[in-house]
Amino acid sequence: MATKSRNGSAKKTYSYLGPVGTFTELALAQVPEAKGANWHPVANVQEAIDNVLSGHSARAVIPIENSIEGGVSATLDALAASEGIRIFGEYLVPVTFNLVARPGVSIKDVLTVATHPVAYAQTHKWLSANLSGHSYLPATSTAAAAAGLLHADSVANAAVAASTITDHYALKVLAKNIGEYKNAQTRFIQIGLAGKAPAATGRDKTSVIIEMPTDRPGTLLEMLEQFAVRGVNLSRIESRPIGDRLGRYRFNIDAQGHIDDAAIAEALKGLHRFSPKVQYLGSYPRADKEKSVHEGNNSDAQFGDADKWFKSLNR
Amino acid sequence: MATKSRNGSAKKTYSYLGPVGTFTELALAQVPEAKGANWHPVANVQEAIDNVLSGHSARAVIPIENSIEGGVSATLDALAASEGIRIFGEYLVPVTFNLVARPGVSIKDVLTVATHPVAYAQTHKWLSANLSGHSYLPATSTAAAAAGLLHADSVANAAVAASTITDHYALKVLAKNIGEYKNAQTRFIQIGLAGKAPAATGRDKTSVIIEMPTDRPGTLLEMLEQFAVRGVNLSRIESRPIGDRLGRYRFNIDAQGHIDDAAIAEALKGLHRFSPKVQYLGSYPRADKEKSVHEGNNSDAQFGDADKWFKSLNR
Amino acid sequence: MATKSRNGSAKKTYSYLGPVGTFTELALAQVPEAKGANWHPVANVQEAIDNVLSGHSARAVIPIENSIEGGVSATLDALAASEGIRIFGEYLVPVTFNLVARPGVSIKDVLTVATHPVAYAQTHKWLSANLSGHSYLPATSTAAAAAGLLHADSVANAAVAASTITDHYALKVLAKNIGEYKNAQTRFIQIGLAGKAPAATGRDKTSVIIEMPTDRPGTLLEMLEQFAVRGVNLSRIESRPIGDRLGRYRFNIDAQGHIDDAAIAEALKGLHRFSPKVQYLGSYPRADKEKSVHEGNNSDAQFGDADKWFKSLNR
Amino acid sequence: MATKSRNGSAKKTYSYLGPVGTFTELALAQVPEAKGANWHPVANVQEAIDNVLSGHSARAVIPIENSIEGGVSATLDALAASEGIRIFGEYLVPVTFNLVARPGVSIKDVLTVATHPVAYAQTHKWLSANLSGHSYLPATSTAAAAAGLLHADSVANAAVAASTITDHYALKVLAKNIGEYKNAQTRFIQIGLAGKAPAATGRDKTSVIIEMPTDRPGTLLEMLEQFAVRGVNLSRIESRPIGDRLGRYRFNIDAQGHIDDAAIAEALKGLHRFSPKVQYLGSYPRADKEKSVHEGNNSDAQFGDADKWFKSLNR
Repeated sequence: MATKSRNGSAKKTYSYLGPVGTFTELALAQVPEAKGANWHPVANVQEAIDNVLSGHSARAVIPIENSIEGGVSATLDALAASEGIRIFGEYLVPVTFNLVARPGVSIKDVLTVATHPVAYAQTHKWLSANLSGHSYLPATSTAAAAAGLLHADSVANAAVAASTITDHYALKVLAKNIGEYKNAQTRFIQIGLAGKAPAATGRDKTSVIIEMPTDRPGTLLEMLEQFAVRGVNLSRIESRPIGDRLGRYRFNIDAQGHIDDAAIAEALKGLHRFSPKVQYLGSYPRADKEKSVHEGNNSDAQFGDADKWFKSLNR
Repeated sequence: MATKSRNGSAKKTYSYLGPVGTFTELALAQVPEAKGANWHPVANVQEAIDNVLSGHSARAVIPIENSIEGGVSATLDALAASEGIRIFGEYLVPVTFNLVARPGVSIKDVLTVATHPVAYAQTHKWLSANLSGHSYLPATSTAAAAAGLLHADSVANAAVAASTITDHYALKVLAKNIGEYKNAQTRFIQIGLAGKAPAATGRDKTSVIIEMPTDRPGTLLEMLEQFAVRGVNLSRIESRPIGDRLGRYRFNIDAQGHIDDAAIAEALKGLHRFSPKVQYLGSYPRADKEKSVHEGNNSDAQFGDADKWFKSLNR
Repeated sequence: MATKSRNGSAKKTYSYLGPVGTFTELALAQVPEAKGANWHPVANVQEAIDNVLSGHSARAVIPIENSIEGGVSATLDALAASEGIRIFGEYLVPVTFNLVARPGVSIKDVLTVATHPVAYAQTHKWLSANLSGHSYLPATSTAAAAAGLLHADSVANAAVAASTITDHYALKVLAKNIGEYKNAQTRFIQIGLAGKAPAATGRDKTSVIIEMPTDRPGTLLEMLEQFAVRGVNLSRIESRPIGDRLGRYRFNIDAQGHIDDAAIAEALKGLHRFSPKVQYLGSYPRADKEKSVHEGNNSDAQFGDADKWFKSLNR
Repeated sequence: MATKSRNGSAKKTYSYLGPVGTFTELALAQVPEAKGANWHPVANVQEAIDNVLSGHSARAVIPIENSIEGGVSATLDALAASEGIRIFGEYLVPVTFNLVARPGVSIKDVLTVATHPVAYAQTHKWLSANLSGHSYLPATSTAAAAAGLLHADSVANAAVAASTITDHYALKVLAKNIGEYKNAQTRFIQIGLAGKAPAATGRDKTSVIIEMPTDRPGTLLEMLEQFAVRGVNLSRIESRPIGDRLGRYRFNIDAQGHIDDAAIAEALKGLHRFSPKVQYLGSYPRADKEKSVHEGNNSDAQFGDADKWFKSLNR
């Protein structure tokens, strides 16, 4: 997975959702092993996944959850469609939006604002109040919107982008921190080819995608009981349509604990029996560093005691 | 466990709740291995258990459930108090009560009726209608009540007893089949020292006693989910007080399936974590010979598939 | 219901499980309205119920739960079979057993001990240790066992009875407080004809008997959810066979709260839809005087808010 | 709400997500009352909602669910943020995508394809296979992408749009039905100001948004039980972040039945107690015309019986 054959060095390559200057770059900066590696910006989540699958990149960093807009649908769906990909880490990045423009442009000149739709939604309140008659030009990323301002024929006069954007482009800040939610965060994941999970730390998370067996009532309750009965708490549950017809769903779930925890292991096996398709996405340390406890006597020690007791019974 | 040292033969001894002529004797007659063995009547359930624990008897047959009066409390409580006892089989006996008396006594002479309280409850309707002014004398068994009629100083003129009683005592039948419930049955169990369960047949039952962890609300729901999540159906659930203070219970449960079934094994281990005390009473063939199926993809094959899948994940 | 026509006074009559000197008498003494009324001992629970149904007695006091032996089956089954009876109060009586005998009899003279089977079970440990070779003579009540000692032809030399027995009979105490469980209690209920429940106190209990709709798996879980979803905790749940065939049960349940509480009202109506037969036995103050709280925002005020909100929706 | 003051007629105005030629226009064509009314295309879902809130339009038709991309996030979030809006109907539109271009452009000329990101995701497979080197230009709608082709300075050579687009613009079809999912549908809703729901038909749906009370484990299970215990099936459940911080969700739910059904009424009130915020979005006939049955004896008749029984109890 090192890129020696391609560029003569032994450096690992990390793909990330580009272009330079986006929030994803800030997430990649949190990966210790990525220091000094090749950073490879890509155009979309699927390209990042493809880079990993083809061996072009050892790992990739992509957004998966945004505290305002919810699951990044493209990521959830791309993961569901990609066998052989695992998550190896997660990173939280505070979301701070600035309004930027070319030098010389002042706020009263701004008629059209370019940005990514998510960023637009998060700054819509400020923009309506302060640029009431503006037009909106959707862009594929906040960085692309910012970069576009430098083109000769740019339609937009300003862009909403991450605060780091001015490190990369000759733009100036018209207004700072214009997002509606001051505590907004985006969660990013580091993905790689399927392999051994990072060692359990006691502060871990396990991600799975679970297809519902049918649309009969009570199915979701049954699925949740697979976790509850082993004392496993969920930190995230998001539904996504399977896509073949209306009314069929899969659930993207983050459960507290590690695949090497007995409670998680038993829950995963129970889910495999319950569901027509369970996709294990990996176990990795929690970004918030909180403990992953299995409630109700479901620790590894208590699983061990139960095994010992059980073995003593039928002989 | 053979009784050679006591009576010179190599015959096994079977204790049963006596005296001769009770329903329990009819249950013992259903045990193929008991044919030609020593049949040892005992005075109460505890004595039967003690015979097994001491090695006096290889096995014992005792009543455990009566379709009218419910669990035989003495048996349920004696089992809960006896470590080292297992159930090896169950037997159903139809309950048919006759009114019997000494020869020469006619129904109009009957002033006092002796019988076991359970039998009295089951024939009370008939007795009230046909012997309206009678007195009731409780006895420790229907057979003891019948035998007592032959004593010179018997207070009772008639007894309610099993239809087989007239095979043992010089009594005659005053009225046949006087029980209220014509389909009444009593269920009996064969107990022995803890050891390997009879082989799984696909039509099995597993009995456990489960102490509730606390009296907080929802505990019973949680306990039932330990079975439900593994597709294990219950054929009997009976509460009994633990006895140390009001409001604390243990549950006597018969679950469908065998300890060698993966679903039962996992449920037992889950219950061991959930409860302060689980007492495994054994796995044995069902008397009604119906299949013991684990619903919702919880067969052994499906447990095996889940294990295989799980093993493939983290490497 | 007053007994004027029978004894010339306007006094109310209270039936109670006799004879005099039993624990039930101590429970009746806890009923304030029974002071100065006629106290009428009866031979069994059914007679007490019949006294109420016929109008012979205004009320009756009978045992319903014993912390050691569990639900008094006869009471549970008699209530299930009697339409038109309600519970109006409950009373706790500490269970203290003494060994009593005729004056002049010393403990070394005791060969046969008479008592009720429940009392025998509770004192069996002490009796085995201190009267190792004794025989046991079952009696219909502890008081009957004690009274029997005074008969000329008494087979028993001693009786296990309530500590108050020596107030009624010329007997002396051979040993005090010989029960195994020092905190043992029996719970008694006051029953009467169906009518308005005692006013809600915030520390109430509601008793019901619920027949399970079928023996399909999950039925008990569904029944418990009828309570849980309205935040109603249960303080007692006991199964009893319905009696028509093995495997069919009804549950005797004490729920926290009063029929005038919105949470209890909605739960009762839900149970009525769920079950083929729900028998409401009444709402009455808790003997332990603890609060009856409906968890999870299910207070009357919160039910009221929800009603108001709902009414605002569809207009 | 009639638009007389604006255009001299008494015609009602229907806003819909424009521009002309989108799938939403096909949904509006399914609304019988919209025949002959003013059809007013708007730029985004929020504008449609605002038209209704201001009285500019009587009603609006907007997309809410797409069988491939899932809930239309903008709609779900706009509804959650708008008090006073109700759903009055739902409509299903088959999704058929064509590749269109200006006359004279052939498929081998196509370098850049414009379309809405959802449409792009649904036709990506076909485009990759047949236009392997193409660039993608995101547009705010499929119709806008198509219309843009006619601009002199259009960057794109082709657009992916609804099959009806060629009724509106001088474009020709390069390839027909290029979507991946041949049975793809989009679901649209008709919204208006809060008011009386359309009468119950027995084939109805009720939409709600339910905020989870906390992120403690088991909360989702508890919420689902509010429906299950009243026999109410769900046809859709989608999570959306509340947006104030990671880990807090609201659920968008479509339940089977009408607010005038007793089961739905009781479930709504239960949810109101359970959740810090329940938003009732309306009851309306199901587009699929299947019956809305409340399982487990939860019909209106059975609710009525339970009420009658309950009223008979405490008097």
